[in-house]
Formats: sequence, C-alpha cells, structure tokens
Amino acid sequence: MSEIKKIGVFTSGGDAPGMNACIRAVVRTGIFLGKEVVGIYQGYQGMIDKKFINMDARSVRNIIQLGGTVLKTARCAEFRTPEGRATAYKNLKEEGIDALVAIGGDGTFTGAELLSREYDIPIIGIPGTIDNDLYGSDFTLGYDTATNTVLEAIDKIRDTAASHDRLFFIEVMGRDSGCIALHAGVAGGAEAILLPEKETAIDDLILKLEEGALSNKSSSIVIIAEGEKNGGAYNVAKRVKERFNFYDIKVTILGHLQRGGTPSSFDRVLACRLGYASVKALVAGESRKMVGLRGNLIQLTDIVESINNHSYKLEEDLLEMSAILSI
Amino acid sequence: MSEIKKIGVFTSGGDAPGMNACIRAVVRTGIFLGKEVVGIYQGYQGMIDKKFINMDARSVRNIIQLGGTVLKTARCAEFRTPEGRATAYKNLKEEGIDALVAIGGDGTFTGAELLSREYDIPIIGIPGTIDNDLYGSDFTLGYDTATNTVLEAIDKIRDTAASHDRLFFIEVMGRDSGCIALHAGVAGGAEAILLPEKETAIDDLILKLEEGALSNKSSSIVIIAEGEKNGGAYNVAKRVKERFNFYDIKVTILGHLQRGGTPSSFDRVLACRLGYASVKALVAGESRKMVGLRGNLIQLTDIVESINNHSYKLEEDLLEMSAILSI
Amino acid sequence: MSEIKKIGVFTSGGDAPGMNACIRAVVRTGIFLGKEVVGIYQGYQGMIDKKFINMDARSVRNIIQLGGTVLKTARCAEFRTPEGRATAYKNLKEEGIDALVAIGGDGTFTGAELLSREYDIPIIGIPGTIDNDLYGSDFTLGYDTATNTVLEAIDKIRDTAASHDRLFFIEVMGRDSGCIALHAGVAGGAEAILLPEKETAIDDLILKLEEGALSNKSSSIVIIAEGEKNGGAYNVAKRVKERFNFYDIKVTILGHLQRGGTPSSFDRVLACRLGYASVKALVAGESRKMVGLRGNLIQLTDIVESINNHSYKLEEDLLEMSAILSI
Amino acid sequence: MSEIKKIGVFTSGGDAPGMNACIRAVVRTGIFLGKEVVGIYQGYQGMIDKKFINMDARSVRNIIQLGGTVLKTARCAEFRTPEGRATAYKNLKEEGIDALVAIGGDGTFTGAELLSREYDIPIIGIPGTIDNDLYGSDFTLGYDTATNTVLEAIDKIRDTAASHDRLFFIEVMGRDSGCIALHAGVAGGAEAILLPEKETAIDDLILKLEEGALSNKSSSIVIIAEGEKNGGAYNVAKRVKERFNFYDIKVTILGHLQRGGTPSSFDRVLACRLGYASVKALVAGESRKMVGLRGNLIQLTDIVESINNHSYKLEEDLLEMSAILSI
Repeated sequence: MSEIKKIGVFTSGGDAPGMNACIRAVVRTGIFLGKEVVGIYQGYQGMIDKKFINMDARSVRNIIQLGGTVLKTARCAEFRTPEGRATAYKNLKEEGIDALVAIGGDGTFTGAELLSREYDIPIIGIPGTIDNDLYGSDFTLGYDTATNTVLEAIDKIRDTAASHDRLFFIEVMGRDSGCIALHAGVAGGAEAILLPEKETAIDDLILKLEEGALSNKSSSIVIIAEGEKNGGAYNVAKRVKERFNFYDIKVTILGHLQRGGTPSSFDRVLACRLGYASVKALVAGESRKMVGLRGNLIQLTDIVESINNHSYKLEEDLLEMSAILSI
Repeated sequence: MSEIKKIGVFTSGGDAPGMNACIRAVVRTGIFLGKEVVGIYQGYQGMIDKKFINMDARSVRNIIQLGGTVLKTARCAEFRTPEGRATAYKNLKEEGIDALVAIGGDGTFTGAELLSREYDIPIIGIPGTIDNDLYGSDFTLGYDTATNTVLEAIDKIRDTAASHDRLFFIEVMGRDSGCIALHAGVAGGAEAILLPEKETAIDDLILKLEEGALSNKSSSIVIIAEGEKNGGAYNVAKRVKERFNFYDIKVTILGHLQRGGTPSSFDRVLACRLGYASVKALVAGESRKMVGLRGNLIQLTDIVESINNHSYKLEEDLLEMSAILSI
Repeated sequence: MSEIKKIGVFTSGGDAPGMNACIRAVVRTGIFLGKEVVGIYQGYQGMIDKKFINMDARSVRNIIQLGGTVLKTARCAEFRTPEGRATAYKNLKEEGIDALVAIGGDGTFTGAELLSREYDIPIIGIPGTIDNDLYGSDFTLGYDTATNTVLEAIDKIRDTAASHDRLFFIEVMGRDSGCIALHAGVAGGAEAILLPEKETAIDDLILKLEEGALSNKSSSIVIIAEGEKNGGAYNVAKRVKERFNFYDIKVTILGHLQRGGTPSSFDRVLACRLGYASVKALVAGESRKMVGLRGNLIQLTDIVESINNHSYKLEEDLLEMSAILSI
Repeated sequence: MSEIKKIGVFTSGGDAPGMNACIRAVVRTGIFLGKEVVGIYQGYQGMIDKKFINMDARSVRNIIQLGGTVLKTARCAEFRTPEGRATAYKNLKEEGIDALVAIGGDGTFTGAELLSREYDIPIIGIPGTIDNDLYGSDFTLGYDTATNTVLEAIDKIRDTAASHDRLFFIEVMGRDSGCIALHAGVAGGAEAILLPEKETAIDDLILKLEEGALSNKSSSIVIIAEGEKNGGAYNVAKRVKERFNFYDIKVTILGHLQRGGTPSSFDRVLACRLGYASVKALVAGESRKMVGLRGNLIQLTDIVESINNHSYKLEEDLLEMSAILSI
C-alpha cells in the first residue's frame, strides 16, 4: 500500500450535532500529519457531482460550536448503483483523493463499505447519528445533544403540565432505538416511557396513570419513541383519552428540532477524538473500520460488524428504575 | 369605600411565563403596604372550592425565575353561572378577601368583570397571556419568552434545514393573533410567514419559494400561526408538496412547549412592574381596570375596553420588510 | 445630490449581539432597492486599509442568529487624524462607495459625523451597543440579549447561593449606564442594585442586608454595575465583609461573556428594522442621522444630538420598586 | 444487623447540579422499598441542630430539574470534633434514623466514614461534586453540567474574541483537578489549556500563541484551571502581556456560576441511578461504600479507598490532541 497523500471527508445521512467539530478535527489532524484534506459536499452525491473543496486549517475555524454540517448531507440513489459508484471513484481518483473519512450512520457505512470493497480505497467510518445505535461505540455523535434538546422541551412542558393538571404525550425521535426516549424520559421524570423495543399494553399505561392520579400526582408526562408499537403519540393519546379522564390530555411531536442545536461538551469532545483517531488510523494503514469510544478508549471495529449489529440494547434496569422513581 | 385589608391573587386561563414573578410582586407589594395577601389556587375554581392560602414574603422566594404558575390555573364552567359566582363571592367574603388581582387573558377578565359588577368587589386585571393581544398594554406577560422559545426552535431547525436542502413548515401558537409568528419569523429569517390576520394564497407561497430556490437558496423555513386560514401547517405542507419539488418538505408543530420555560428578563421586569402597579392601584381605590405598559409607562385601562378590543393589530410594515429581508 | 449607487456598511467599537442580523438587513435591503453593497472589515481601520468586500444576498445567509460581527470591529487611532480620514475617503471614493451605514456606539458616530462633515458623504448611524445609552432610540442593539445573559448567570448563582446561605456580589457591564444592572437586577430578584448614576452608602447596603437576614432570607444577591462609585464588586465586597457576617461572601465578575451569544428575538427584530430603515433613509436622501426606535416607530435623530445626549436616564421608579419586591 | 427502617439523606460540601434529582431518587426508592425517609438540612450541621424533615413521594416532585440542593448544604466545624459527632449520632438515634445516604465530595465522605466507624451506623456515599475527581466512579454528579456551563461561556466569548482579534484568558474551577478545564477547552477549541496537573512554561505558551497569530489566527482563547501553577488567569495574563502584542488581552473569571444551572440529561440520569443504587445497597446490608458508575455499570467502592485515591488522572492523550486540533 502506498502512502496516503490526500484525504476526502464527507457527511452523509441525517445530520447530527457534532459533525462540524468532527470535520474540523479530521481536517486539522490531516494537515498536521502532512496530508492534504478535501471536503466533499453532500456526501455520495458530491462524489458523483465533483463537489470537492480543498480545506486548510483556517477553513474550519469557528465551526466547532455549530449544529448541522458545513459539508452538507444528502441521500443519493445513484450511488447505490454500480455505475454511480464507478463515477464516484473515477472522480475521487482524478481529484487525487486516496483515502476517505465517512461521517454518518449505518446507511453511510454501507455505501463506504461497498466503495472500498469494489475499488480498494481505504476508508474509515465515524458514527454520526443521534440514535446511538451503532455497534462498536458506546456513544454516537449527536446523541447527547439530542437527548438534552428533548429534555429542555420536557422541562418546558412540565411547567405548563404542572400548572394545569394535564397529561402530556411527547413523541421523540427513535424508529428502532429507544435510547433517546429512555434517557430523556428518566432525566425528565416521565411517568411512563414507551419504546420500540418493548410492547406496552394501553391497559397497563392507563393503570399506571390512574395510580399516579390517585396518589396525588397533579400532572403526568409520557414519552413515546416514534417507533413504538402502538403507532406513535397521537394514537396512544387517542386510545387513552377514551377511558382516562383525570386530566386534560395534550400531544407534542418534537420532530426535527431534535437534530439541530449547538453540540454539547460531550459531543464535541467525542467528535474531536473520533475525527482525530480516524485520520491516525488511515495513516497507520487501517481501512474498513469504524472508530468508536468504548469506556474511555478509542477502538476500531470492522465496519461490516458495525453495520450488521447496529441495534441499541435496551437498558432494562433503567426502565425498571424509571417506574419506581416516578411513583 | 372602606380600606382594603386582604387581597386575593390568582392566575387563570392558559399559563404564561412571568406569572410567578408577577405573583411574587403582588404578594410583596401588598405586604409592604400593610395588607394581607391570600393566594387562590386554580383561579375561579379555587374560589368555589375554598382553596385559599395565606402568603408571606418568604412564600414567594425563589419563584421569580420559574415558568408556569405556582398558584395553578384551571378552566371553570361553574363560575360562568350566577350560582357559581355567588358561591365564589360568599367564600371570598368568609375568608375576608376584599379585593382581587386577576392574572390572565380576556376570559379571565370577563369573569373578573362579572364578579366585580355583581358583588362590588374591587378588582384589577394583569395581562398574562403569550398571545400579546390585549388592548391597553403594548406587551402581555409571557409573549417575549414564548417568542424566544419559538426562535430557539427555528434556529435548531435551521441547522438541519441548511444541511439537507430542506423546506420546513413550523406551526406556532396564535389562534387569532399572529404576533408571535410574525416576530419569531422575522427574527428567524423565515422565507414566509402565514398569519391569521391575512389570507395567503398557496400559489403566492409557491412562487416565493421557487424564486428563493432559483436565486440559490439552499433551504427555506415557513412559519405558520395555528389560526391561519389555510388550515395549519399540515394542510399547507400537503398542498405545497403537490406542486413544489425543489426541496424535501418537513413539518414541525411546536405545541405546548411554547408556554413553558424560565421567563426572559423583559417578561420578569414587566411582571414585577404590573404586579406592583396592580396593588398600588387597588390601594389607591381603583377597580375594574387592567394595568398595562404603554411606552415605558404604566397605564390603567377600563377592563371592559380591554375585553372588547383585544385584537393585536397586524404590523404590516414588518411583514413587508420580512419579504425583502428573506430574498 | 446624485443618486446613491454603492453603500458601504461597517461595524465599529465594542461588538454587540444583533450586529450580524443588522448587516444582513442592510445588505438585502440595498440589493432589493437596486444598490450595490460593500462590507468594510474592521470599521474605520478597514477604510484606511482598503478591506472592502462586495456582498450579495447569499453572502449574509445564516448569520442572523450569530453573535459578534462577521465584518469585525476594531478601534482605529489613525482615523482620528485628518490625514487618516483623508486616506479613508480617498479609498471609499476609489471603491465607488458613495454612502455609509455605521453600526456602533457614540464613538462610531463621532467618526462618522466627522467624515460626513468633512467630505460630504451621506451617512446613517445605527445604535449598536449593549449599554442602551444612545439618545434617539428606546433600545440599542444587543442590550436585550446582554440583559438576558446576565440574568442567566444570576439564576445559576441563585441556585448555589440558596443552597449555601451565601451573599453574592455580581459585577456587570455598565461604565456610565446602569441600564443592564437595573433591569437584570429587578428580573433576577436582587436584594440590592448599585449603579453608576446613584451613590450608595456602604452603611445603607449593610443595613439592607441585615434586615433581609433578620427577616429570614437565606441568601442574597447584589448586582453592581462596573461604573458604580464605590469602585466595583471587589471593593464593595471587601468593605461589606469587614462588618457583615450573616453569610459567606463571594464575588463574580461576568466580564466579556456579556457581549456574546446568539441575539434574542427582540434584538434581531430591532436589528432588521433598523438596518432596513437605514438604507431606506439613505435612498430617501437623508444623511447625518441615527435611526432609532421610539415606541413602536422608526425615528431619525440628528447624529450630533445622539452623540451629545447619550446618557441613559435612570428609571428611579424601577429602583424603588426593586427595594420593595426584594423584602 | 437489624433491618433498616428509616433512612436519612443529606447533601454536604459544595453544591452540584443533579443533587436534587439524586435526593428525589433516594426518597422514592426508599418509600418504594417500604422505608421511611428523612431529609437532613444543611448536612452535618443539621444533624447537630436536629433539622430533620419527613419526606413522602410528593415532597420531591418537580425538583428533578433544579440546580442546587433543596436540602441545602453547609460546612460544619463542630462535626469534626468527637463531641459534635456524639451529638449528631444521639439526634439521629432519637429520630429513629438507622441508615444514611451522604451526597457530596471527599470531605463529606470523610465525615461519613468517621461517624459510621465510631457509631456503627450504615452509610453509603454518592459522589456529588463538579470536579469529577472521586476514585470509584467515572463521573461525579454535576461535572457534565458544569462543563457545559463553561462551554457556553467560551462560545459567548468566542463571538467577541473573533470580532475584535482578541486573546482571552478564561479561568475555570478546578483546584486540583483539570478535568473541567481540559474537556471544556477541547470542546471550546481553546488554543491552550493550563492545568493543575502539569506545569506550563509561560515561554511555551507565548510561542504557541505567536505561531497561531503568524498562521493567520484572528483570535485565541486560553483556558486556565484555577489551580494551575502560574497562579491563575490574572497572573498568566499579566506575564503574557509583557511580551505578546499581537492581540488585545482580556481576562474572565467564571467563578460560582459554574456550580448552578439545571442539570444536563447525563447528570440527571446519573443522579437517578446512583440515588436508586444507594438505597438498594443499604437495604442489601452494605455500608461504608461509595456507589459509582464504571462503564455503564453501578459499582461499590470502599469509602476509605475513594477518599484516599481521589485524584483525577490527567488524560494526556486529550491534551496532546488539543494542541493539534487548535493549529
């Protein structure tokens, strides 16, 4: 394997807070180690459309604190075809890019894995998704920030819930992973938390809410991950309303505001560490790996493994604790 | 008129940030002026249910920064009947309460006006509603905080909108008044703002969005007050989607989180001033008035006038400016 | 007077939140009205050093929410000399800039007034300073944000003050103007507020604190504007410590963090309105004026008047109220 | 050992965000397990002064989000004497308290250890201190929140630093531990970080700053832990000023605002888990242990060990990375 000269970095899939801090880390580490670094706009689409931009150390100044991604992100159907990937690789080669850092989730890694397998270009993946569901890292970029964003919303709603004797159903992100819902629910003192990983009978939920009302609770907050099995907050609220009338019931759908915002300290430090480690790994000859944090240590995981084992494992002990602490 | 000895204070209708700062001001001003102050829980319902609590200066410590209302609020059908008001007045009298401070919106004032007319009890109203639509005050309690809450959400969504080339429709509170939508929309740099006070043709909206896309805008944000005439964000988004395909389209409904949160400096200073002025007005023999801020001066408005003229007058110049600044 | 073709915009003096929103408004209004707009980096220094940059509508995208100023600011001794101003004017003329918008405080306006008098170039000033002390506008850009920043700090310190039975002295910005200190002090429920405009005897302060302690207050917060006459928070704390021992005493100096942060809704709307109005005024043939907000209306004030009458007039009624509400 | 019937819970030493969430967890877990729970005001002082209050499930409602500690905290010299502890134990016994949960830092644990050794009362410690320096837990309550508070301040100062070409020295908490300084410094993109654990020659600092200025940096931020060896931010700034004149230099001392604020999601989940685990441990017959989080697991550490090994171990790899990422 010849020495790496020019590293391409891109973000792909849903954006997540911390991506910019991570881009900065990749760029500056690359430059420090004597490499050129090229930003690729809009992920795989940008490879096909030749949206390349040379990045120097100053090009990433004052972005560490910004949400979103300055390199933008996009979904790209064309890259899923062999022809699309052929074009992408040709363009990368013309540009002189001989290694890639891919920041995103499992969709991003699937594309990266294909490209590196078909064209033998070294690639390192960085887990960037608010869902915290990638195998090989205790935490993914953006999860901590998103959880705090949800929590701020819960705190605000708590003010009005407690003032009115109301029951609130708050729907949060998480199609397959209940990690945000569970942690924000515990931190927000929610009376119940409904998760994709666990079926919740509406009868049990009503029972729990009735017990709370009878033991003098003046309001209640129920957190519902969008992927839970009863069909989301509107449906749960509708079914509860039919039989529960202790409080007035309201629904809030937090939606995309959960993706934005200035990243937390945790996410920025994580972003710096993973970005730094990804370039070091490339330079050390690694490829087809995801860099992750395990305990307080950086670890590399085979990217195929991280794609195939991506589910978050429900922390049952937290769920059980939550039921006790919200009595 | 005999001298006032005991003042009752209550919050009613939707809660608004700054109500607690206002309660603190009423309590401490009353005590400073040698009066007793009684908190009435859950507004008119609490008068009927005798939910009275004596308040001393320490009882309101450390609440100036809290959202919601420590006295709670409720809607009360019974109070709308003559019998309900008779019970309420009897209970107030037994408790020795000989004057009232009512914090809320026009529904609250309507109740207060009836009670004071039927039973000759002095009453002063304080405008407490996020909608900023009460005649007699340039600002109502909670409006500034709610607008900032909406703005924070817009800023977060802007991060993800700009990263993805997306179009966002954000629905904010405002059934009859577009004040929050207009100000948050201007402050958030929204590409379009749809208000209850003004019909917006979907064709015009699409034209505006297309112009933006053609002039190189990578994303757009449209703010929609819940009371606008096309039926809210979901309906507008649906109709736009049918014919506009420059960007991916997403909808966010902010809902009740707009009511909560720690009040802004502006709202707290306003709350202090209005609470302080309300007690001074009662002691000076005033009744059936709303205290408000006009320019930088406290003014009293006949409560009947403030009920009958409550609509916010659309600032057409801001709307026109907004269209120019979002080119 | 010939028609204006190219407007130069710059920021000068201390930066203030909202300056970027204001720059965006100037640029886009200019372009909308068919003018070219040039950004001048680092204020008067940039005129001398020819730091000019053409600005189109996209050049100011995504800056409405940013603190600081993208055009930067600097102090410039050279511009105070006739030679400096001659160079500046020559450079402006070469660049084709035939009108100026100056965003800053009274130092900025003084420079602008000189230049426009000596070289007959039209100029409009926009009040941008957190101190809220410019004659001709009820509010200056950044004041509302800075006050909320101070308030957040007070709220945080209140948590720890209340947990420990402590007395805190918090020093905030304001050399000549106590506006931030007074409003943040009222909003933060401070037990005492020391201002540049009013002498406070240390004896009176100690008496007030002792009364609080004896009436069961568990902690106290004293806000001190940096320009108050006893020499700032450290000196006041030292003298109080010698004779007051109810609580442990701590000092916090907020410093420059008061200048930064994302601007509030109020400041952004104000920034948009003033920026928009400044260009409209220039195009209408106005010069040597400051645009300001009076009530809810835009007004022009002779720039010489705004320089000569810049002091904030202490709101004595708020100060008196504050003493009562913190009993 | 007889079965535990009544658990006393208290906070002691410096307050930390998350203590209230932790108190709630202790109270509700105790009640759920059939125990009585008593809150002890002001820590050891409250034991001596008999400041006991019975706590039911509702007594801790709506406190999960509050900074500070509702049980208050105090330093207590008397408890350090054998006589003081004798009085404390007598009072606990009279009240029927037969087990203790102590929330605080190593000073708190030292007192707890003595009491439990001398009087054989079961005691479990919970690490509550922003310094993150207790052996036996990867994280202590309040550290994550404090780091984010520091980071928000850095972000605000960055706005003004970047607008003015300025150099800022920001002093943050940390007498012996540089954990907050290091993490906030990395997350804030600081150009240099000075820590108690590592001597920094002023010459090296100046060299680093000069390199930055020469490579086109327009501003710089230096984070200084209060315990660093050059004597804090004022002294470092003074010595740098004598020889470095690329930028204007400003100093900010964050002080006690770092202790307050609503706890982050991370701190609240940690608080819930440690509070819950502490009661479970007591009921299971454990004593003289600190509950901590290691990886994602609750672990018990001998309290003597956690007192004797309390120092944070400097993450040298982060410091090295920080130097590279701030080029």
